[in-house]
Amino acid sequence: MGRVTQARRITTVRIRDGRLHRGRKGDHLAVEEPLDIRLNGQPLSMTMRTPGHDTELVHGLLHAEGRITAREDIAEARYCDGAVVEDGSGYARNTYNVMDFTTRRPQLLPVLAREFVTSSACGVCGAASIEDVRRKGRFALAQDWTTTPRALFAAQRAFDAEQTIFRRTGGIHGAALVTPRGEVLVQREDVGRHNAVDKVIGWALLQDMLPLSDLMLLVSSRAGFEIVQKAYMAGIPLLACVSAASSLAVDTADEVGMTLIGFLRGADGGGADGGGADGASAGDGRMNVYTHPDRLDLSDAE
Amino acid sequence: MGRVTQARRITTVRIRDGRLHRGRKGDHLAVEEPLDIRLNGQPLSMTMRTPGHDTELVHGLLHAEGRITAREDIAEARYCDGAVVEDGSGYARNTYNVMDFTTRRPQLLPVLAREFVTSSACGVCGAASIEDVRRKGRFALAQDWTTTPRALFAAQRAFDAEQTIFRRTGGIHGAALVTPRGEVLVQREDVGRHNAVDKVIGWALLQDMLPLSDLMLLVSSRAGFEIVQKAYMAGIPLLACVSAASSLAVDTADEVGMTLIGFLRGADGGGADGGGADGASAGDGRMNVYTHPDRLDLSDAE
Repeated sequence: MGRVTQARRITTVRIRDGRLHRGRKGDHLAVEEPLDIRLNGQPLSMTMRTPGHDTELVHGLLHAEGRITAREDIAEARYCDGAVVEDGSGYARNTYNVMDFTTRRPQLLPVLAREFVTSSACGVCGAASIEDVRRKGRFALAQDWTTTPRALFAAQRAFDAEQTIFRRTGGIHGAALVTPRGEVLVQREDVGRHNAVDKVIGWALLQDMLPLSDLMLLVSSRAGFEIVQKAYMAGIPLLACVSAASSLAVDTADEVGMTLIGFLRGADGGGADGGGADGASAGDGRMNVYTHPDRLDLSDAE
Repeated sequence: MGRVTQARRITTVRIRDGRLHRGRKGDHLAVEEPLDIRLNGQPLSMTMRTPGHDTELVHGLLHAEGRITAREDIAEARYCDGAVVEDGSGYARNTYNVMDFTTRRPQLLPVLAREFVTSSACGVCGAASIEDVRRKGRFALAQDWTTTPRALFAAQRAFDAEQTIFRRTGGIHGAALVTPRGEVLVQREDVGRHNAVDKVIGWALLQDMLPLSDLMLLVSSRAGFEIVQKAYMAGIPLLACVSAASSLAVDTADEVGMTLIGFLRGADGGGADGGGADGASAGDGRMNVYTHPDRLDLSDAE
């Protein structure tokens, strides 16, 4: 499988019949890495993707945007030689994260906002993306802040019960800001998962609440790099998602000191991906803790 | 709920114990509409979102991008008065899809690619977005092409069995090109659902197969406007997703003449949202047909 999945050791937390269990296990994450796409040497777009079949990806993207209509329109497609990172052994290694496509006919390109990319010289890679987030963030995340597994499971159940548009349509994402005791302060839904997150953080900003150093962010979807980035920009110490997290989401959370939780399922709930713990009683639940489990009070765990 | 959900009549198709059933029922879709965001009168970005809490959305987005740090940075936030559409009665109606935010301090804005927006004068709305897709498309969709519910259910089961990264990680989207007999020609996975679609269409473009007038596109995720757009650009007559479709996805498919199917579940499968038909036998399945059911052979339906 190469670069498409990545093995990790994670902390598992489970409540069953009222008893809290803590464990460690191996897990696999879907790999997320930036792809810097250039057309005729000019920056065209930056996308977060799972490495592999990049040539197909860029052909498909250029076609969807109406820039090419057939493969003859592309004279050359290649990974940039200069896009390298030090691999720790003193040797430079190609990131395979920068592709340049040359068209047979010249194309006028828009000047794009590329604040995200630190520098074309350093070679775009996960580490550069994380460094960029760290540089932009204004708030250090609260270190002494804690919550409990029971509060998280209760919040997930309340969140699930409130996803009114999701229940009607089955087609929407949700995000919520939650107190350490598990109370949902604000919850929003949107067809775009980034939008739902922007709505709750925008709500908090309008209340002059930033940094959100005493709250956690709960999302109904997967957690990718950009969700972690948005949470970090708002100073949120803990991000919990009902579904999986990507490799770069986990790496970013790890580096900036954020607690990242995935597959959060309270017993009555289940969230967008279905699933709640089968045959469990109320109050039960389970989660995977990818980073910084120290913000979870597990003192009574077996 | 206002503009956040939309009621529709849809066609339901179900196979149970080997017998094909066709029905009609009311359904609710999550609303998707474009939001044109301007900063100090200049275009900043265009996002597809569920209407509601737009002021929060834009504040959150500007904060995540590092453009503002507190609400004091925004002097005024308003929907543009001039963003109107004819509502059919002869009166102009504000779309509430264009917002202008004025910052206290001037901001340098990048020049963005805005091919997507037809014209700022006409007021961005769902209809304008659809018109833009129609204008860009090069291929008329095949009218005489048909497939069967059994082929679709078989394809969904095969697709599900092949989602190897999803099964390892639970955190990835898939897309596949499928023949009318239900054979999967190519299948790709990616953390980004648009990327998975770009990869399979890029694969086909590299094989000189466009237009894909004899194939269908299967996606593991929800279907939004952009997925329909990508399928239409490639000339694909039928798009089936394992999860829900948005209002604008359905409207677009309807207008361009594409068959759009949601909640496609073969009995052994279930897809990313869980769920396969409970207690069903192999070969069973169910789906919702949002548009153009004429491409499904339902001649033996009860």
